[in-house]
Amino acid sequence: MISVDDALQQLFSMVTPLNHETVPLAQASGRVLARTVTAKRDQPPFAASAMDGYAVNSDTVEPRARFDVVGEAAAGHRFDGSVTKGKAVRIFTGAPLPLGADRVIIQEDVERDGDRITVKDGLGDSVNIRPAGSDFRCGDEIAAPRLLRPSDIALLASMNIAEVSVFRQPDIALISTGDELVMPGETPGPDQIIASNTYGLKAMLDSIGAKARILPIARDTVASLETAFDLAKDADLIVTIGGASVGDHDLVGDVAVGLGMERAFYKIAMRPGKPLMAGHMNGAVMVGLPGNPVSAMVCGHVFLAPVVRAMLGLGRARTPRLTAPLANDLPPNGPREHYMRAHVADAGITAYERQDSALLNVLADANALLIRPRGDGPRQAGEIVEYLPI
Amino acid sequence: MISVDDALQQLFSMVTPLNHETVPLAQASGRVLARTVTAKRDQPPFAASAMDGYAVNSDTVEPRARFDVVGEAAAGHRFDGSVTKGKAVRIFTGAPLPLGADRVIIQEDVERDGDRITVKDGLGDSVNIRPAGSDFRCGDEIAAPRLLRPSDIALLASMNIAEVSVFRQPDIALISTGDELVMPGETPGPDQIIASNTYGLKAMLDSIGAKARILPIARDTVASLETAFDLAKDADLIVTIGGASVGDHDLVGDVAVGLGMERAFYKIAMRPGKPLMAGHMNGAVMVGLPGNPVSAMVCGHVFLAPVVRAMLGLGRARTPRLTAPLANDLPPNGPREHYMRAHVADAGITAYERQDSALLNVLADANALLIRPRGDGPRQAGEIVEYLPI
Repeated sequence: MISVDDALQQLFSMVTPLNHETVPLAQASGRVLARTVTAKRDQPPFAASAMDGYAVNSDTVEPRARFDVVGEAAAGHRFDGSVTKGKAVRIFTGAPLPLGADRVIIQEDVERDGDRITVKDGLGDSVNIRPAGSDFRCGDEIAAPRLLRPSDIALLASMNIAEVSVFRQPDIALISTGDELVMPGETPGPDQIIASNTYGLKAMLDSIGAKARILPIARDTVASLETAFDLAKDADLIVTIGGASVGDHDLVGDVAVGLGMERAFYKIAMRPGKPLMAGHMNGAVMVGLPGNPVSAMVCGHVFLAPVVRAMLGLGRARTPRLTAPLANDLPPNGPREHYMRAHVADAGITAYERQDSALLNVLADANALLIRPRGDGPRQAGEIVEYLPI
Repeated sequence: MISVDDALQQLFSMVTPLNHETVPLAQASGRVLARTVTAKRDQPPFAASAMDGYAVNSDTVEPRARFDVVGEAAAGHRFDGSVTKGKAVRIFTGAPLPLGADRVIIQEDVERDGDRITVKDGLGDSVNIRPAGSDFRCGDEIAAPRLLRPSDIALLASMNIAEVSVFRQPDIALISTGDELVMPGETPGPDQIIASNTYGLKAMLDSIGAKARILPIARDTVASLETAFDLAKDADLIVTIGGASVGDHDLVGDVAVGLGMERAFYKIAMRPGKPLMAGHMNGAVMVGLPGNPVSAMVCGHVFLAPVVRAMLGLGRARTPRLTAPLANDLPPNGPREHYMRAHVADAGITAYERQDSALLNVLADANALLIRPRGDGPRQAGEIVEYLPI
């Protein structure tokens, strides 16, 4: 058995970032920028008023000073003349500053009488102007790769970028295997259960930027598995669930090897999720997950999510971990890295009593996977431990 | 000016949860469950083997005990006979436990010779069986409302739920207003800038479960604004951006009132984002945001996100806050609640130097809004403050 980190490194060695595609800006949130974007203009493109008020020349400003209002500048509508001594231009937030003006007196700081204003006492010294290029300058960059968040989308819009180059979303084929399975909505026989792993994994993988598709359930026959792999052949990542153990009924590995899979590793020192295999398969990465529902989801967080991020150009790194203090003592851990279903709250992180890898009910309650290193000693309440938020 | 909390309460008083719709389970992740789901079966539906091994009657198990292997049980394929004294059934993970068996000896704990097995020394006492209903029982519930996460989707699948009733996604119409604006990809005139707020807000609102649409830019005329409101008339939430201030060019409020808007409030004691109005408008909630890009996005996090969650049946609560220690001292705050662009890391939270509400560049760098209460005194490095993750 190899360590989780070794397995992850071997997976990364099989991954190359996907190619690029162009999408409209309104559909780019959550995608990963593939080409660095350069601003083609200053923002603001002109010195602009930061407030509603009166644009003047600052030489002439003092309490009780009086100005004639000679015109108006609004956002989108510049005042064409210039501001000279004793003159003011009514100006609104975002409007270009008129020629000759270098200060905006906010409207609350003047008394207006017809076309004349008088500066009140107690004037502050803010000039209330946004210089040209104060947000960004022509030539400023948003560097790729970058996971685009809503505020990035706003910034890109402001740079007049209508479409962006992003990494293609990984096409992931999810294959459940096993004669015991039926799809949700079907009527299971007395020995059967409902396929749930593909549904949970699709939701998880889609949420991090992949495009996962649920293939028909493969039966425990060579022919059925070959059909499933054929449906998956254009995928970037092929994930089988179940049939990866050493039991006599675990055909998946044999069939995959027969179809050209070069096995990279088999079995990892982790709980839950011990039976896990991976390899190259005709240009795709193939990962075989255990069939226990919780094991499959945990392996999704620990192995599939980093592979997806690597395909999206976000680098080759394990899923970022957070830390929290233990709410309760924990016994020593065994020889396998343990991802315990847990709940993290203000008081710390608590592992659930029931850690059987078949319990989806517990997983749905959990919001964290508490990570116990291999051979970790007993831990006391208050000690800081690592976890993955889920 | 009213407080942020008062404004939020007034917004909530205008909101009712939206009606329900049915979606296939594969599309339900990120949606909010609207009707409680009840399991129609036990999981597992039968006592099942938790391991690959041999099913026996535990009365006869001791080190060096020998058994005849009389059959096989695989997932999906029950052994039809029963297990009597001295007999064992080869069994695989997930297979129904045969009649008469109450223990599975894992395959690593036996020596096999043809159709006979011998139990090794040093046998543990685990029975390796998952009792029927150990994950969930017929009648167990997933209670609505609940934001469905990937592990919930897996659990629902496992309950044989093929489609679920969820709250309809709020239809949000986003209207930028102002003669100074053009859409990304267009050529701005010398006095113009690019509309960015609608793009940033759409990305943010879509990510929390809404369906936002960007309407054409409304010009600073009554006719243009009326056209925009007409396009928005079927929306659940109408958001205008810009034109909500007290300047002479701020027509939006007047036009909205003319079209039936009943104003609930106007102006909130917060920074950035002071000009903000809200009201009922022909069955929709109407919110007018300030035009400064950062103000609009901050108001989106502080006001629009809680409204969306309330429409989605998730209750009436402000956006959940986190806490972190200050990395640097902060001066006292003024009379308005201040949402400072900040960066949170292991060492604590740091507010950016530049807090001008026009700086999208700073917002795109930030990952937090540090919240200063009204009239908050000076704060020292190490003190715990609240923030919104963004």
